[in-house]
Amino acid sequence: MPADALPAGARNRRSWIGRSVPRLEDGPLVRGEGRFVADLSFPGELHARVVRSPYAHGRIVAIDVEEARAAPGVVAVWTAGDLGALPPIPFRATAIQGLEPYCQPALARDVVRYVGEPVALVVADDPYRAEDAAELVMVEVEDLPPALSAVEPPSDWAPGLSTEPTVIRKGYGEVDAAFAGAAHVVELDLSIGRHSAVMLETRGLLARFDAARGVLELHGAAKRPHWNRDRLAELFDLPPSAVELYENHVGGGFGVRGEIYPEDLLVCFAALRLRRPVKWIEDRREHMMAANHSREQTHAIRAAVDGEGRLLAIDEVLHHDQGAYVRTHGARVADMTIGLLLGPYRVPAYRAVAHYRLTNKTPAATYRAPGRFEGSFVRERLMDAIAQRLSLDPAELRRRNLIAPEEMPYERGLSALESEVILDSGLYDDLLTRALDFSGYAGMQAACARRREAGEAVGCGLAMFVEKSGLGPSELVEISVDAAGWVEVLTGAASVGQGMETAVAQIVAETLGCDYRRVRVLHGDTARIPFGFGAHASRVTVMTGEAARRAAEAVRDKALEFAAALLGEPADTLDLIEGQASAPSGASIPLGVLAAKLGPASADRGEREPGLSASAWFHSKHMNYPYGVHIAQAAVDRETGGVRIERYAVAYDVGRAVNPAMVEGQIQGGLAQGLGGALFEEFAYDPDGQPLSVTFQDYLMVTAAEMPPLDVLIREDAPSPLNPLGLKGAGEAGVNAAGAAVAAAIDDALQRPGFVTRLPMTPQRLRAALKAAP
Amino acid sequence: MPADALPAGARNRRSWIGRSVPRLEDGPLVRGEGRFVADLSFPGELHARVVRSPYAHGRIVAIDVEEARAAPGVVAVWTAGDLGALPPIPFRATAIQGLEPYCQPALARDVVRYVGEPVALVVADDPYRAEDAAELVMVEVEDLPPALSAVEPPSDWAPGLSTEPTVIRKGYGEVDAAFAGAAHVVELDLSIGRHSAVMLETRGLLARFDAARGVLELHGAAKRPHWNRDRLAELFDLPPSAVELYENHVGGGFGVRGEIYPEDLLVCFAALRLRRPVKWIEDRREHMMAANHSREQTHAIRAAVDGEGRLLAIDEVLHHDQGAYVRTHGARVADMTIGLLLGPYRVPAYRAVAHYRLTNKTPAATYRAPGRFEGSFVRERLMDAIAQRLSLDPAELRRRNLIAPEEMPYERGLSALESEVILDSGLYDDLLTRALDFSGYAGMQAACARRREAGEAVGCGLAMFVEKSGLGPSELVEISVDAAGWVEVLTGAASVGQGMETAVAQIVAETLGCDYRRVRVLHGDTARIPFGFGAHASRVTVMTGEAARRAAEAVRDKALEFAAALLGEPADTLDLIEGQASAPSGASIPLGVLAAKLGPASADRGEREPGLSASAWFHSKHMNYPYGVHIAQAAVDRETGGVRIERYAVAYDVGRAVNPAMVEGQIQGGLAQGLGGALFEEFAYDPDGQPLSVTFQDYLMVTAAEMPPLDVLIREDAPSPLNPLGLKGAGEAGVNAAGAAVAAAIDDALQRPGFVTRLPMTPQRLRAALKAAP
Repeated sequence: MPADALPAGARNRRSWIGRSVPRLEDGPLVRGEGRFVADLSFPGELHARVVRSPYAHGRIVAIDVEEARAAPGVVAVWTAGDLGALPPIPFRATAIQGLEPYCQPALARDVVRYVGEPVALVVADDPYRAEDAAELVMVEVEDLPPALSAVEPPSDWAPGLSTEPTVIRKGYGEVDAAFAGAAHVVELDLSIGRHSAVMLETRGLLARFDAARGVLELHGAAKRPHWNRDRLAELFDLPPSAVELYENHVGGGFGVRGEIYPEDLLVCFAALRLRRPVKWIEDRREHMMAANHSREQTHAIRAAVDGEGRLLAIDEVLHHDQGAYVRTHGARVADMTIGLLLGPYRVPAYRAVAHYRLTNKTPAATYRAPGRFEGSFVRERLMDAIAQRLSLDPAELRRRNLIAPEEMPYERGLSALESEVILDSGLYDDLLTRALDFSGYAGMQAACARRREAGEAVGCGLAMFVEKSGLGPSELVEISVDAAGWVEVLTGAASVGQGMETAVAQIVAETLGCDYRRVRVLHGDTARIPFGFGAHASRVTVMTGEAARRAAEAVRDKALEFAAALLGEPADTLDLIEGQASAPSGASIPLGVLAAKLGPASADRGEREPGLSASAWFHSKHMNYPYGVHIAQAAVDRETGGVRIERYAVAYDVGRAVNPAMVEGQIQGGLAQGLGGALFEEFAYDPDGQPLSVTFQDYLMVTAAEMPPLDVLIREDAPSPLNPLGLKGAGEAGVNAAGAAVAAAIDDALQRPGFVTRLPMTPQRLRAALKAAP
Repeated sequence: MPADALPAGARNRRSWIGRSVPRLEDGPLVRGEGRFVADLSFPGELHARVVRSPYAHGRIVAIDVEEARAAPGVVAVWTAGDLGALPPIPFRATAIQGLEPYCQPALARDVVRYVGEPVALVVADDPYRAEDAAELVMVEVEDLPPALSAVEPPSDWAPGLSTEPTVIRKGYGEVDAAFAGAAHVVELDLSIGRHSAVMLETRGLLARFDAARGVLELHGAAKRPHWNRDRLAELFDLPPSAVELYENHVGGGFGVRGEIYPEDLLVCFAALRLRRPVKWIEDRREHMMAANHSREQTHAIRAAVDGEGRLLAIDEVLHHDQGAYVRTHGARVADMTIGLLLGPYRVPAYRAVAHYRLTNKTPAATYRAPGRFEGSFVRERLMDAIAQRLSLDPAELRRRNLIAPEEMPYERGLSALESEVILDSGLYDDLLTRALDFSGYAGMQAACARRREAGEAVGCGLAMFVEKSGLGPSELVEISVDAAGWVEVLTGAASVGQGMETAVAQIVAETLGCDYRRVRVLHGDTARIPFGFGAHASRVTVMTGEAARRAAEAVRDKALEFAAALLGEPADTLDLIEGQASAPSGASIPLGVLAAKLGPASADRGEREPGLSASAWFHSKHMNYPYGVHIAQAAVDRETGGVRIERYAVAYDVGRAVNPAMVEGQIQGGLAQGLGGALFEEFAYDPDGQPLSVTFQDYLMVTAAEMPPLDVLIREDAPSPLNPLGLKGAGEAGVNAAGAAVAAAIDDALQRPGFVTRLPMTPQRLRAALKAAP
């Protein structure tokens, strides 16, 4: 129903939740009025360029900066020694101890450990002059052998420190006994390639010490502004209240943008030291070697299965390639991989060992569905292999192992993200049935079979997954209504382009009975709200959404009580409709008038607290768990090794879809990245540790041409019991099982079960595999 | 006691209130790190220049802008017709009705009414090009006769509108009967010249429509940011939450800066229309004819007195010269003049009529002690004349009429600033005695007499006054402590250089037991706090101070309760000392640690609301009334007419002096402005209405050379009963009675009682008066 269709004065409340209304965010963006960090400038600003190590591993002998310092326009050239006692990048995942020595310094001190590692900073009056001068910095190293594989035995990372900083173990039950008594044991060796988010907008930062206020400002924040603020304050020994982080428009986050990187420390250091604004805008080549990588893992997994295909135990050994340093996430991705690996299945016994290994590559961290893209690939490959072993239909094999609705909430006996894994709700079997129906899976299988008979290599596959969302611990929302009836919603969550303003506005509009376009959702300014937990882990709609609903309820209560007093009508007969407090008699007062009459100086206010406003917290100790099914149909070109995804379907239960079009958009975007990881994207290194994928010629992104037609089925059958609206997150559903489903489809296309053991299945790799075993 | 002198761990709480600690504001200013609005720049900014009427009164025949539009760098040239339906400047003093038709439009539409009135706006890429182009705009008018006197009979201001928009009447008691039965009737005709604040920093504005956020920003706010925000939102039909006003460093306010002027409307209009930042920086000549003038009044006053010199009635007729338009204050200065005229004296019957008159001069409004500088001059001249008539010592005559402490609170039966005048506390007689002692008045009189006998024209005089301060209605303060133990205090009051950050920090530090230098007082950002009433009417220390104290109490309570729980000690044995919650056992926890442990994710927090923070309102229906005595010693040069103030003393009861040095600074600065108004400063006009005082050659500011040695006696004998700290305001004490005391001293120097009837008593004027009546 269009927003303007309701007749004036109607007593029907318009519903906003569940409607695919246009995004509030899009106006400035489509009008070219977006303001990304590169669009910002301050008078007198300087430009920073990072000098990066050209060596994968080496002891620094000398860094000659003299020529660079003398270059035109150069204000400063610094190496590690110039930074004083500036601590390395801190991390926030503290469950695993002992990782501190592996944290990355802002500039390499004695040893360089990956190509791209910052070794010096050049600050000049112009970005081009800074870049020119950076090329004059000469780094001399004594070569050290690069460690490039996480599966080779650990070596020394530094004196007394191993390249295996930690080994994480999780599990429960009698695994060995289960294997001893199993009807079948199925074993697989699988690996996922190194890739990551390559956002439309590269990273960028603008730091400025506002001497007039005594405040360090950092523009270009994203993801975790408050956490970053607190850490930067500690690093630079400033009070947190004297550090302000500002988000701008953000051209994609996906977990990669917004972490504390060496560049964050460097621009802040420069701004504090030079007392001038310092801007750094990452170039694409830098991004490819400087922003967090992700995903690279090797899994040795085996399952014990009974005669009917029921899982008895899973035994998993993970080697996680972290790259050169521990960054903000600590060992969280490895931890999460094994903590969430079991997906929707009942697994009586489980043992997982994660070897968290450092190599001489770009440091890694989270990328959309971290640990789950990897885990789903591994788990679903395993399920396919079991089905094959038992000659069962893959869907049927899965059905026999799915956790039933009556088992919910289901305690896994595992933890992830420092939180106990308790699956909160799910109709897994039901969604599988719906997904097969929705996609016409039987027909798809039959059509593929017919085409295979005609000589084509075409097939289809499916994969199931459980996502996690709504990570706590808390979120605060402050809502106020102004005298024009506009509603301002302030949150410490962040927007990285995901549409959070719209979703939160819809939730608030639903409660306040006003048009969602009258709701302005403000975020990304640490000075305006004391706490915030940012945008990650598919948490914003759940955490901010519920906090916003609570705050809106409080505003609503205040509005109705006050309107009732003004109108002389009982409060419980009033409702908020079309931006007015309306009584059955037809009398009504606009929200804006109520707000004005609640002003501090208003005589009407009585003893009420001034302002039509309220704030509310939502605290949550547990994540919730949306889930879904991916179905892919793939055609393989045996000559080129190319894989074309012909059709794709995703069924996803999101608990409650605030804006179905945005959920679908999330799935569409996620799928593009999932297909990239399945088929194209890989940060490759040569044997010396030189990165081979630092341009778009070598790092292949999925374009519109590679995207298949996508059908999305959004379900709301299993609302989360952990919040009143039943909200779960939607950000990672499109990417999660893409590797798994594509692998199954390729297997089917080639009629070679278990063919795909490694992602991405690039044309070269597929062709080589076919040649090796025709 | 120096801040660092207390031994660590001492259980003595250091007191911050009452100490003359250095100002927190001064650091950036003395380091050259101040940021005034002229220091701000945004990329792509444009520069505005206002084309002003060269005529005092005329019907606009044509404004030729073609040549200006074609000038290099010019982006736009607008006249009134280009502004569409933009309303005129609104006003906030609404007690007096019917003033709306007299409000000033942003650009003159059909008639120009004063020299300096904006008639066109030029916007260019450079301020110099804007100024050059502005000179090309040709304004053609048909001359109309200028009205230049407020005492001549009213004429037509516009069809159907008189130059007397309102007549204000106040009073009580049987005035005519009192005069009929009086032993003496004393009558005076007095006038005060047109002058105003001429701040170190001229006005300036930078407006910017932030299209990325959909927000209109106005930088350069002062005095009343929230009120101005709300009005600008209305004028431009924007939601108030989409308009943000930002204060910068401010080089003096004094009531003049921070009102809504035509330029505020113009730069906002330009920024919205052009979608580029638009900056306007007033030049000094502009300031002299464009910023609010003040003070120009003529009084016909008479007193009925009994045989002992006791006042029986006062009958007063005021002609107030408002200039060409009603501005934001409406008729408030005229209203306040007669509402507060009676000062510290018991007056059984009172009748006052204020003729609020429009003339063809720059519009007038408030300037430091508005209506009181004028009223004190009139009242104290009257008291001197009565003393003279009855041959009483001026101090003795005053004593006979002073309201006694036991009469407090004293209801005047009058109103001012839309609030009933109730003198809250005062030991008037006691302060007079102390002032005479403190200044050595008797000795001063004797010394003057001796010098007069030797041929010098030297004398002394005194004047008493009551100030008003702490104007409500409300103020909100939000306090939070960060993890480093820094305390952030957020207020909607404004800083115009008066030291409010320091005073508020002292009050908060007193309550929180921390160093005041750890308290950051944030203000001047309407986006950060929903309400605020700004900096005017000597209200900030009272209103923000008390709200801050309340919020700090709440923070203190939370800190002590939490610390007690953590330490396992009873809360009532703990105290906040040196930034720590300390138990008698010696155990203690720093405030910052308490704040960190109250973080949302902290396990220690329990069910407590996250954050070591609180907010509090202070609502006040009544002003409070500090009071004082001015004593001046003046030497007159009969040849040149020059007056030299040789000594000056001010005794002032401020209720509670948070920072005595700052109170003294306020008095010192105020006195400089008061002496200016008494002796030098005047906006003169020629018979055509051409302003004669638009440079510092013609408008004579008091410099260090003219300033006398000043002794200040600060007393705290009559704390205000209206707030727990007893706070009253200090901003206007130095200026209030300066005209009165100087006049008395000149009379005495010349031994001609009643000689001074008009301010400023410039050398020319004094010499002419001596010549006219030698």
